[in-house]
Amino acid sequence: MVVVLEKNIKEKQLENVIKHLEEFGFAVHKSTGVEQIVLGAIGVKPDFDIRRVKVLEGVAEVYRITEPFKLASRSFKKEDTRIKIGDVEIGGNAVAIMAGPCSVESEKQIFTIAEIVAKAGAKILRGGAYKPRTSPYSFQGLGENGLKLLRQAGDAFGLLVITEVMESSQIDLIEKYTDIFQVGARNMQNFSLLRDLGKASKPIMLKRGLSATIDDLLMSAEYILSNGNQNVMLCERGIRTFETYTRNTFDISAIPVVHKRSHLPVIADPSHATGLRDKVIPMARAAVAAGADGIMVEVHHDPDSALSDGPQALLPDQFEDLMKQVRAIAEVIGRSIV
Amino acid sequence: MVVVLEKNIKEKQLENVIKHLEEFGFAVHKSTGVEQIVLGAIGVKPDFDIRRVKVLEGVAEVYRITEPFKLASRSFKKEDTRIKIGDVEIGGNAVAIMAGPCSVESEKQIFTIAEIVAKAGAKILRGGAYKPRTSPYSFQGLGENGLKLLRQAGDAFGLLVITEVMESSQIDLIEKYTDIFQVGARNMQNFSLLRDLGKASKPIMLKRGLSATIDDLLMSAEYILSNGNQNVMLCERGIRTFETYTRNTFDISAIPVVHKRSHLPVIADPSHATGLRDKVIPMARAAVAAGADGIMVEVHHDPDSALSDGPQALLPDQFEDLMKQVRAIAEVIGRSIV
Amino acid sequence: MVVVLEKNIKEKQLENVIKHLEEFGFAVHKSTGVEQIVLGAIGVKPDFDIRRVKVLEGVAEVYRITEPFKLASRSFKKEDTRIKIGDVEIGGNAVAIMAGPCSVESEKQIFTIAEIVAKAGAKILRGGAYKPRTSPYSFQGLGENGLKLLRQAGDAFGLLVITEVMESSQIDLIEKYTDIFQVGARNMQNFSLLRDLGKASKPIMLKRGLSATIDDLLMSAEYILSNGNQNVMLCERGIRTFETYTRNTFDISAIPVVHKRSHLPVIADPSHATGLRDKVIPMARAAVAAGADGIMVEVHHDPDSALSDGPQALLPDQFEDLMKQVRAIAEVIGRSIV
Amino acid sequence: MVVVLEKNIKEKQLENVIKHLEEFGFAVHKSTGVEQIVLGAIGVKPDFDIRRVKVLEGVAEVYRITEPFKLASRSFKKEDTRIKIGDVEIGGNAVAIMAGPCSVESEKQIFTIAEIVAKAGAKILRGGAYKPRTSPYSFQGLGENGLKLLRQAGDAFGLLVITEVMESSQIDLIEKYTDIFQVGARNMQNFSLLRDLGKASKPIMLKRGLSATIDDLLMSAEYILSNGNQNVMLCERGIRTFETYTRNTFDISAIPVVHKRSHLPVIADPSHATGLRDKVIPMARAAVAAGADGIMVEVHHDPDSALSDGPQALLPDQFEDLMKQVRAIAEVIGRSIV
Repeated sequence: MVVVLEKNIKEKQLENVIKHLEEFGFAVHKSTGVEQIVLGAIGVKPDFDIRRVKVLEGVAEVYRITEPFKLASRSFKKEDTRIKIGDVEIGGNAVAIMAGPCSVESEKQIFTIAEIVAKAGAKILRGGAYKPRTSPYSFQGLGENGLKLLRQAGDAFGLLVITEVMESSQIDLIEKYTDIFQVGARNMQNFSLLRDLGKASKPIMLKRGLSATIDDLLMSAEYILSNGNQNVMLCERGIRTFETYTRNTFDISAIPVVHKRSHLPVIADPSHATGLRDKVIPMARAAVAAGADGIMVEVHHDPDSALSDGPQALLPDQFEDLMKQVRAIAEVIGRSIV
Repeated sequence: MVVVLEKNIKEKQLENVIKHLEEFGFAVHKSTGVEQIVLGAIGVKPDFDIRRVKVLEGVAEVYRITEPFKLASRSFKKEDTRIKIGDVEIGGNAVAIMAGPCSVESEKQIFTIAEIVAKAGAKILRGGAYKPRTSPYSFQGLGENGLKLLRQAGDAFGLLVITEVMESSQIDLIEKYTDIFQVGARNMQNFSLLRDLGKASKPIMLKRGLSATIDDLLMSAEYILSNGNQNVMLCERGIRTFETYTRNTFDISAIPVVHKRSHLPVIADPSHATGLRDKVIPMARAAVAAGADGIMVEVHHDPDSALSDGPQALLPDQFEDLMKQVRAIAEVIGRSIV
Repeated sequence: MVVVLEKNIKEKQLENVIKHLEEFGFAVHKSTGVEQIVLGAIGVKPDFDIRRVKVLEGVAEVYRITEPFKLASRSFKKEDTRIKIGDVEIGGNAVAIMAGPCSVESEKQIFTIAEIVAKAGAKILRGGAYKPRTSPYSFQGLGENGLKLLRQAGDAFGLLVITEVMESSQIDLIEKYTDIFQVGARNMQNFSLLRDLGKASKPIMLKRGLSATIDDLLMSAEYILSNGNQNVMLCERGIRTFETYTRNTFDISAIPVVHKRSHLPVIADPSHATGLRDKVIPMARAAVAAGADGIMVEVHHDPDSALSDGPQALLPDQFEDLMKQVRAIAEVIGRSIV
Repeated sequence: MVVVLEKNIKEKQLENVIKHLEEFGFAVHKSTGVEQIVLGAIGVKPDFDIRRVKVLEGVAEVYRITEPFKLASRSFKKEDTRIKIGDVEIGGNAVAIMAGPCSVESEKQIFTIAEIVAKAGAKILRGGAYKPRTSPYSFQGLGENGLKLLRQAGDAFGLLVITEVMESSQIDLIEKYTDIFQVGARNMQNFSLLRDLGKASKPIMLKRGLSATIDDLLMSAEYILSNGNQNVMLCERGIRTFETYTRNTFDISAIPVVHKRSHLPVIADPSHATGLRDKVIPMARAAVAAGADGIMVEVHHDPDSALSDGPQALLPDQFEDLMKQVRAIAEVIGRSIV
């Protein structure tokens, strides 16, 4: 921690700041500059609340010099985390494609879509059985029956499956059916859920919250990692800004930023980021061009009848075209599509 | 729903839009203007996803004309909701004062602070026993023991108590000790938790999420209301913006906006909104001047030693001064302090 | 400047960083901690671009320790700046009230409104003659004729006047008529205009841009101050956020923040911050309660016919009521209304 | 305009709303629904302030149905605008590459860089002679001498040139030297400047302001178009959000959105959007993948010594690599690099 003191700090105030720092457990190191004194407070305390120093009299600014997260950081683990599930690897050279409907709606629906996405080359089938809906009056998902149908459709077409978990009490049940747990944006800081998923045996895809900084996202990953589950992938899906034309603002630059700060893989979800079908394709291409380790897109054979998020689902032939394009773009940057 | 069509829409596209609207269950009403055709789609479907129409060819814009929430809206219930707990009423003429430490830390601490805030005139004691902390390495609260101490301190000084609930499995336990459940900003869209709190018998204070619009907040209240619990109060505690000098940006104008759109009381929390002690006092005054039905402030007799959020806690004499000022400001607008 | 190095920095990288810092003109001071090395780079260079160090290999983080502004800072000048114009003082104990229409529309209009606001107790008449309108098709103001009418109306009722300047070529003309120049939010970083206003003889009210941090605002003030004009007051008028119910989000906490970082007075403009008449009154009260040195509100005797911003203008009797309320609130915090 | 009335509107209020609409010049069309009455107000008034209706008693919501801009809209002009300058066309199939230093610093510097970017395949040389700097103490550009050097370097290597104009008084001078005027983000709503550029004979590249919505950007383009200059291209360069790791948040989805709403070409500037060299390359790739009509990147042969923005400038070999990658990505989507 670096503590910058006010230019005209009094001797007594200076002593008081140093005394507090020592009481908080830091070794203090003083440098006197032309105009100002700066204190280095040495000691590794990742969760220290720097405002405790900021409020002391005579203190101008305080900066944390250690990252607040540890296990998630690139300085803790240099090599990229590669998550192997069956014969799919996420976080390696290949870009993973996750596709499927927003919600599992019926046996026919999920089997139809699973076949389409498998044929086009996806390896992972998405589909929600428990849906976090803004309105209590909206379709809330098929529950366990949805999980079963998703698993069966995945198995029938050789696909892994990913589905959302909304609360700790669902973990055991979902774990029986899924290959990857998805944590939604609205639950990114549901710390009870994160802690419990740290004890689960399956990998987790953690979506960035609408108002979460990249560091907040990494802190939430730290909850899972520090509870024992090392197979965490992150997901950029748009942040909330003043621009309302798109549902959210897709922060594609988060992809290279996360790769610099962390060893964890980053998936991009252009469907939720933009919310409108015709924006999903260019944004999926952009995400792969920016270095995403995977993309998750919604696909539906009959989006007009979808029970949720139909307007952002790609049609089957759009998805096929997209696969061709992202395959070619991946090659340009020396990667492949699984 | 109002559907604005593109200026040069083709006859066939127009027919297709109308057909879809009818299939979705709306009665369609067409008005032809100078340059454009506008369709009125009549039928009450608060959870209809308007993007299903937005993606149709020939459609320029779609506007929802019914609010997405019902029970929370002022048009559903004209009179202000007044929540009576013991001899305290929230949402009436009097402004409620909730004060106390961020976390319950020890018997001595909570009793000391309870006495201070009671003497200064607060009627409700706040204190966390389960803490949602950004870092897994930070103090996570005393749990049930914290609940017991909070209750005892409240009873000793004639104060009601409010404490945070983080997950559904805690509801029964917390309900035994608290008078009001607090739902934190990060759980504002934890829909499982909201649904379960709709079945609880005690009132709920729902905090606005960092990236939640006022309508999002009202939709989350709708989850609780529609599950049966009508005693909901909302809490403005700052939103996330580009300004980083303060922890969050305190959206004080949300207070009159909520009062116009909803019948539910609004509490303001300047401690979390600003994050620094010397900004809490002017912002608490501002919130009362803007018409808040209550304020929640953190108070600590020894904030340097606080296990969480010490830097934003008021000192006892600051809290006393604040009480005097807000009492005088409440009078200016024809209200009182409970 | 404080330079935090990566944990595993190589000796050669470290030498390179130090060499660069010295070439940039800094004296370098090294502290070796438990896990990391931190360099203090001493030397006062307020405009140094810290990214020049951030991009060097082995550098983890860089923090500026001197504020980027100087003349505007509280550490440069301890005492509050008080701007005296005639018998009005802005920045002292009294809270200044600026009121009037958005635009000067006609002789009758501006005289009618001037009389109303003078009677209610305002000391400064606002009114635009050159209007920055989002649409090229909207009313653009009466130009010089508007300036003349504003001056005449001000003189007739003993009011000072304030009006907006949009470009450098207008400065000489406007200076003949106005007492205070207003720089609008959209021109806050029109550096050519700011530089030229630094040579003007009349005080400047500089409005915060929609996406300007408080430090950006102070940097823009620095442009004026460093060119010689010390009579600068700042104006909080709302920032752009994701919340769209109000026109902007009124960042009232900017008031105490500016008072801490700078000696310049802060005016608050609730009319532009909220954009709707019924929100202006509670927000004006809140601004005074938070410590604003003045408020600027739009008033119109016939807002339905106003050529611009009628919907946010207060009606005459609303303004009178507001004056009574803010007078009482000012007293609560030991201030008065001029 | 669509006016949604409150559910329980009184007959007298309804009559009053209709009377006002008619006085404002609209033809009124009433539809009575199950729960609510909706009025269609017909009449083309792109600059009508809808809040004038919003404040009337009994009005719940008001929606504009005509876009506020006209000449900039896709519905006004179906075909893409193609701007031809010499043998370069912007807005057609080919993607235009603009590259060069942030500022022109010396003859040697600009000639060195011009040669590098020309060899790598760029067709347009960028370089600032008048610099809008946040700090009054920073390098403000070489002025006319910079313009001359830029022109000479462009001519020497067969490049068009683009440079920033900061105020109306510079237009005539800059027009003598440049091929394209650049309007910076901070001047996007400097309406005086936009109006005057509408009378200039050279094309304009208008950068999106940090807090400008896409519609705001199109409204500013409308200022130029409506004053007579039809050669306008837009530039996405990042918006201000709560994420501070990157300088701004690069809103790449603005590219397909602008293409849908407008016929004007869109350039992307990843250098200013991210502010750090290692993020510029992936973001430039992403912008081309998303369909940008051009990219503008900063290049410097000796960025450590650059007088402005060195940390975001690509090194010569990075720029060469980037050219190869974007060339390949452009091909994937059926486009070419000029």
